[in-house]
Amino acid sequence: MSERPLADRAREFFEELQASICRTLEATDSRGRFGDDRWDHEAGAGGGTSRVLVAGRLFEKAAVNTSAVSGELSEPLARSLGCGPAPFRAAGISLVIHPLSPMIPTVHMNLRYLELPDRAWFGGGSDLTPYYLFEQDARHFHRTWKEACDRHDAAYYPRFKRWCDEYFFVEHRREARGVGGVFFDQLPAGEPAFAFVREIGAAFVPAFLPIVERRAAEPWWDREREWQLARRGRYVEFNLIHDRGTRFGLETRGRIESVLVSLPPLVRWPYDTRPPAPGTREAELVEVLRRPRDWI
Amino acid sequence: MSERPLADRAREFFEELQASICRTLEATDSRGRFGDDRWDHEAGAGGGTSRVLVAGRLFEKAAVNTSAVSGELSEPLARSLGCGPAPFRAAGISLVIHPLSPMIPTVHMNLRYLELPDRAWFGGGSDLTPYYLFEQDARHFHRTWKEACDRHDAAYYPRFKRWCDEYFFVEHRREARGVGGVFFDQLPAGEPAFAFVREIGAAFVPAFLPIVERRAAEPWWDREREWQLARRGRYVEFNLIHDRGTRFGLETRGRIESVLVSLPPLVRWPYDTRPPAPGTREAELVEVLRRPRDWI
Repeated sequence: MSERPLADRAREFFEELQASICRTLEATDSRGRFGDDRWDHEAGAGGGTSRVLVAGRLFEKAAVNTSAVSGELSEPLARSLGCGPAPFRAAGISLVIHPLSPMIPTVHMNLRYLELPDRAWFGGGSDLTPYYLFEQDARHFHRTWKEACDRHDAAYYPRFKRWCDEYFFVEHRREARGVGGVFFDQLPAGEPAFAFVREIGAAFVPAFLPIVERRAAEPWWDREREWQLARRGRYVEFNLIHDRGTRFGLETRGRIESVLVSLPPLVRWPYDTRPPAPGTREAELVEVLRRPRDWI
Repeated sequence: MSERPLADRAREFFEELQASICRTLEATDSRGRFGDDRWDHEAGAGGGTSRVLVAGRLFEKAAVNTSAVSGELSEPLARSLGCGPAPFRAAGISLVIHPLSPMIPTVHMNLRYLELPDRAWFGGGSDLTPYYLFEQDARHFHRTWKEACDRHDAAYYPRFKRWCDEYFFVEHRREARGVGGVFFDQLPAGEPAFAFVREIGAAFVPAFLPIVERRAAEPWWDREREWQLARRGRYVEFNLIHDRGTRFGLETRGRIESVLVSLPPLVRWPYDTRPPAPGTREAELVEVLRRPRDWI
């Protein structure tokens, strides 16, 4: 087994993880079904599989994508990696789940492998974007990642938690995208890093599903829905303006519907010039986004 | 009069134009009213006035903003202008109108004055983004701009029309944002350029309003509304990924609600992997976006 190239084994793991997460989400949703769109990269070699569920009972739009592509680094990509033109090989899994209920947070996870001629590394992470704050959920999410990290290196969680807070900061709004999670990059490829990545992948369902189950019965009305749709606008702003994964997809000319499937199904941009009134649950969320907390 | 600095006269013109366009749009809408938010720039000097109408009879969200700011060019801005760090002075008017009916196109206009220590110029333009194609409307819009251009320089319209097609091209979707209009930049400041900018400003109402009046009674149903909301997603993608005006606003730390007021009030991102069926009115629009036409 372990003699096979890491690139192939990583890709295989991402595809198995995709199948298993989709099965679990379908069982939880009990109505929505994931499609299965296989696509080929138009330049270079490789492609991907986009699995998207829409209009479920719990999930308004959920996308779990894998891709494995190879080619030549584009000029801006090479620059951002601090190298010259070079061939690359990449594989990854990327998921974003937008629940229907404003009481259930949006979640994102990504795991990726990138190989250049002289080095290879893993990157990834997962972060939670609630519309209403349930501290219990934020603590559970972080605790799950901390336990997964601690099984590999006690230094990982504090470092990757902080990295996540920094990465998912919506600079122009001066607030975090959500309550964070973990984010890591350039973890030199090898057996220890691959084992860690498998651990993170396997921890996704335990990190997110209990939150879905706990909040599914929470009531909400138009006011909460409107707030959710407006907050989703911030999600779009982050992904289109700041997110490196989205830029990577656009610059490597990945399949556009798969790159942008992370965008929420329905979004509002009201003209809101005042922050939520103090004492409201909306204000409570914004407070936490402006001052990222430790959840453990 | 003409001894006063061009920067002041331009700013005054933009503010008068704002007032006059808002009055006309209110009269046409007959229900919606423009607010009047004055803001000060948090760094540097100056500020702006954002006038926004929401939930009108015809206009779901219309924003007509002016601003006049001065300060030091940020590093990325200086680079994009091909100069070093320098003080600047800018004034402009920017408007985006998102009608409620999918039969009425979205329209955008911007006029701006930018002054550096060693040079100053005007830029601007206007473009039309229909959700359904009415050739009569596209022709009227272009004809109005052509006539305004021709009164100053016969070379302007063909050049600025092509520039508009190039600028408002959504690269990652490989289609134009709409049916274009005119776009110009770096027109050396002076009396002729200022007269041209005044002409363009004055032509906005005659370019757009007849289209609104013609299409206001056109019927539409859920299908047309869904298509409009999904097409609005492309508008967001262009503004957040490509638009230089939006980047300028974000990088000069303009008031964020005013910079992003161009975003549509309600937007869908469905997971659509197939183009509209041939022979439909949706397919007819996409055809025109993929192959920009001459409308005169």
